[in-house]
Amino acid sequence: MKSKDCQRNTALLLVHCYDKQGLIADITDFLNKNNGNIIILDEHVEREDNIFFMRVEWELDGFLIPNEKIGDYFNTQIAAKYNMKWELYFRNVKPRMAVFVSKMDHCLFDILSRYQSGEWYVEIPLIISNHDTLAPVADRFGIPFYHFQITKENKKEQEKKELKLLKENTIDFIVLARYMQIVSPVIIDEYENKIINIHHSFLPAFPGAKPYHSAYKRGVKVIGATSHYATEDLDAGPIIAQDVVNVSHRDSVKDLVRKGRDLEKIVLSRAIYEHLDRTILVYKNRTVIFN
Amino acid sequence: MKSKDCQRNTALLLVHCYDKQGLIADITDFLNKNNGNIIILDEHVEREDNIFFMRVEWELDGFLIPNEKIGDYFNTQIAAKYNMKWELYFRNVKPRMAVFVSKMDHCLFDILSRYQSGEWYVEIPLIISNHDTLAPVADRFGIPFYHFQITKENKKEQEKKELKLLKENTIDFIVLARYMQIVSPVIIDEYENKIINIHHSFLPAFPGAKPYHSAYKRGVKVIGATSHYATEDLDAGPIIAQDVVNVSHRDSVKDLVRKGRDLEKIVLSRAIYEHLDRTILVYKNRTVIFN
Amino acid sequence: MKSKDCQRNTALLLVHCYDKQGLIADITDFLNKNNGNIIILDEHVEREDNIFFMRVEWELDGFLIPNEKIGDYFNTQIAAKYNMKWELYFRNVKPRMAVFVSKMDHCLFDILSRYQSGEWYVEIPLIISNHDTLAPVADRFGIPFYHFQITKENKKEQEKKELKLLKENTIDFIVLARYMQIVSPVIIDEYENKIINIHHSFLPAFPGAKPYHSAYKRGVKVIGATSHYATEDLDAGPIIAQDVVNVSHRDSVKDLVRKGRDLEKIVLSRAIYEHLDRTILVYKNRTVIFN
Amino acid sequence: MKSKDCQRNTALLLVHCYDKQGLIADITDFLNKNNGNIIILDEHVEREDNIFFMRVEWELDGFLIPNEKIGDYFNTQIAAKYNMKWELYFRNVKPRMAVFVSKMDHCLFDILSRYQSGEWYVEIPLIISNHDTLAPVADRFGIPFYHFQITKENKKEQEKKELKLLKENTIDFIVLARYMQIVSPVIIDEYENKIINIHHSFLPAFPGAKPYHSAYKRGVKVIGATSHYATEDLDAGPIIAQDVVNVSHRDSVKDLVRKGRDLEKIVLSRAIYEHLDRTILVYKNRTVIFN
Repeated sequence: MKSKDCQRNTALLLVHCYDKQGLIADITDFLNKNNGNIIILDEHVEREDNIFFMRVEWELDGFLIPNEKIGDYFNTQIAAKYNMKWELYFRNVKPRMAVFVSKMDHCLFDILSRYQSGEWYVEIPLIISNHDTLAPVADRFGIPFYHFQITKENKKEQEKKELKLLKENTIDFIVLARYMQIVSPVIIDEYENKIINIHHSFLPAFPGAKPYHSAYKRGVKVIGATSHYATEDLDAGPIIAQDVVNVSHRDSVKDLVRKGRDLEKIVLSRAIYEHLDRTILVYKNRTVIFN
Repeated sequence: MKSKDCQRNTALLLVHCYDKQGLIADITDFLNKNNGNIIILDEHVEREDNIFFMRVEWELDGFLIPNEKIGDYFNTQIAAKYNMKWELYFRNVKPRMAVFVSKMDHCLFDILSRYQSGEWYVEIPLIISNHDTLAPVADRFGIPFYHFQITKENKKEQEKKELKLLKENTIDFIVLARYMQIVSPVIIDEYENKIINIHHSFLPAFPGAKPYHSAYKRGVKVIGATSHYATEDLDAGPIIAQDVVNVSHRDSVKDLVRKGRDLEKIVLSRAIYEHLDRTILVYKNRTVIFN
Repeated sequence: MKSKDCQRNTALLLVHCYDKQGLIADITDFLNKNNGNIIILDEHVEREDNIFFMRVEWELDGFLIPNEKIGDYFNTQIAAKYNMKWELYFRNVKPRMAVFVSKMDHCLFDILSRYQSGEWYVEIPLIISNHDTLAPVADRFGIPFYHFQITKENKKEQEKKELKLLKENTIDFIVLARYMQIVSPVIIDEYENKIINIHHSFLPAFPGAKPYHSAYKRGVKVIGATSHYATEDLDAGPIIAQDVVNVSHRDSVKDLVRKGRDLEKIVLSRAIYEHLDRTILVYKNRTVIFN
Repeated sequence: MKSKDCQRNTALLLVHCYDKQGLIADITDFLNKNNGNIIILDEHVEREDNIFFMRVEWELDGFLIPNEKIGDYFNTQIAAKYNMKWELYFRNVKPRMAVFVSKMDHCLFDILSRYQSGEWYVEIPLIISNHDTLAPVADRFGIPFYHFQITKENKKEQEKKELKLLKENTIDFIVLARYMQIVSPVIIDEYENKIINIHHSFLPAFPGAKPYHSAYKRGVKVIGATSHYATEDLDAGPIIAQDVVNVSHRDSVKDLVRKGRDLEKIVLSRAIYEHLDRTILVYKNRTVIFN
């Protein structure tokens, strides 16, 4: 996904619909007869509800349908017939990501150092925060930093201003990098399955505030971190990635926080990677991740 | 812990009390002046409540206090002064363990195959079950199997009979190897911190029934297993060991059950190992494990 | 893969060949026009050598080609054109597995307890050993046990007898469950990519004898186990599964052996599961595993 | 280990010597009779060579021996008698660390972001490199950056200049943060067990150059990273920390590199943490880590 790799001239299609015999043959035939060389194809059938999921990537060089008409043709010739939900992406269009932070810097540093070294094919036009604590970090990396102080009273209004700013910057998706505020429907409704949060516990264990204190109190032998799409229900959205680390009686709450920080930044960055790589489909509050 | 190792002629002391300057020096001096060669010493101070924990093992060859008086001397000369709680064990006394099962055999097989090959220094005089399903497995390994059918009405009475049987067999501790019954205070009160349960989830996530179904529904990316001492609160006792395995959207509930079985048996056996090795102290529903 | 699941009436095709545009469309079209409902399709392109791999499973109910002609038709209509290598399996044909052991019982117990509880859809007609140590275990599970004492002088001859026995029992694949002998080409040539070995280290670290001693001496902080297909080069065949466990300075060689045993049996059983599930393709001493 | 925690007024003693009865009692008695309140004590006996290791930390407030004489007194009264090797540290003395880099920035960014946020109690007076690529990163964090171009011909001379610079800055220990040069005895001899390297493989697998390419070619299912003290033998020094991550046939060399980067930075930072926390003793090319 380094810049040069991502600029490969391919299209990516993510679809899901009720499973039906002939689906894969139909889709691959559509691509093949239009001279599209498939380079990746993944499919999965959720047996419980009989839902078919597919992710297919093909080369655009020589493809007979012009980019701007692919969606239209696919919809008419294939998607309509199966009542499909689908998304179409072009690899060489750089996604635009906003980062929301509060006061903790470890996730932000991790994101910005990857950004700086070109690890991801992404643009970060802005950082938003409810505190000005991390303005110097943003500054150090030359990224515009917007401070929106949030109180119970002004929250809705401030979020509307944030939304306006996001729109003006044509932001595609948002990363909550230890943003210690609940994002309300004002923003969530506009960015469904496009807001990636990191929660500092192994969900569904220890949702909400102070999970490391709770983990310590419960005496667990493993702690975790979970990245998920933010939904209106706190810490209950579709899970993208989780990881854990061993702890023991020797670890104080402070040690859990320290060990957890490393998990949080790595797990969040993995989720961002998958999101950027367009491997994720969401269905019924769960994710299908073709990686 | 193979038979021959365990028969080493040593004593083990587990203590906890309020921390105080000079504690370690006092205890080590007690052993040293009685010619006890310390071979393992671990200590930990829980800073929050200022509790001191120690586990010390020393050689009995040449130790000046006879085995049967060690407890008495230690109590008088050291423990009383610090208001200590302490336990004393001799390595070459073989612990006696009862196994409770229901219908699933994977944990039982794992335990019995270790028993059979002498991996643990333990005696298993009996297996108890609320079903007769696994009687043939017990039979195959030549272990007496007792079937106590349990209904809502007869539970208390049956457990009293079980307790009687346990006492008659001088059982030291109990392993619930996927025993799908809640053990009531009748037995728990007599075996405090001496009943090891395995729960098929990453506690405190998914306590109670059908955790794999819940994990599937929640769309987690990691599942786990937890062994803990059984207390009156279901799946809420002190945790001994936990481990996890990655899962993905490809895993159905059946796959989670399959992957989980491997975790369950390994995590349970790790807990049994630690219990047998006398590494565990319990404090405030948490464990200190000196391993 | 429990008996009843595996008896589902499906066929599985594993193919690999040079990648070419239209391949997937061709194969899915072949199945579709013969009324084969695809239930799983996985593909992968190895970019370095441009090799296409696919695993596809479809329902046989209503499939227009009779089972005994599927291979023939597929070969003529598809495989020949692409110069494919392919294998065809039917889910409801139970594979026949032989287990080779020496003196250690933990892997054997693990395999037999899974076999006994019907976890795998497999038949185990026999156990072969160079020692008679584990005959009682085989006996306990009611499986014929054959003892072939092996010396430097008689090895070739004994292996020929073993091979004859394997053939007479129409054995499909072999599991070396801590079989402390090098299997020679006499057998390997007849069971290419069909002999699963477990090596008690994290290959390619510590191949050959006494890996736990070497791991201890090197002071590693993690030990591992590796299951792989046996080839003529010792511990150098295609890797199927690997896993690791943390160790510390507190672990003696004996502790590494103990912790390693748990890894070995689980990693070996995972490899057996994948082999039975027909998810593995071998190419250039590496495995593609569609799980 | 955040600044304020580390400034606690304690001393730390690390010792090793042949094990002998009474050792622990002697040391604890020395501290106790001088009014030193022990807050952490860890000991370990390496059974093979009968070596005793101990790490003990005690409060200096009220301790009867002045700081500058502790070493002297301990040496005379205890260490000499047992022919001990020992090191003495004071928690509130901030260690000084130099970072060596080449062109890759992920480990450097990780180190500097921790430094910046005060995660470690350490001073980083300078960064040294054989390339000027990362000068802007050093600049961004306000740390002096020294560029020593190294050729086969000038290596020894340049290293002497580096050593001079290290000495002038009273550097206590060195971190090789993906420094793609072999450090020669010129520097190693002066910083024995004080140069922390990160190797991008699971040692002893894949030492030397291009481990990810080798891992890919071998078809391993897990890759790793190893931090160790640099010695004259390449990638063969005492191991401090190791960790692994799962990979599959889907991962190209580029993916291994990407996944590996996350491991490298986390594993290196864990090793730095342990070194700073003075938990590590080195013996016979292995580490005892009291964490």
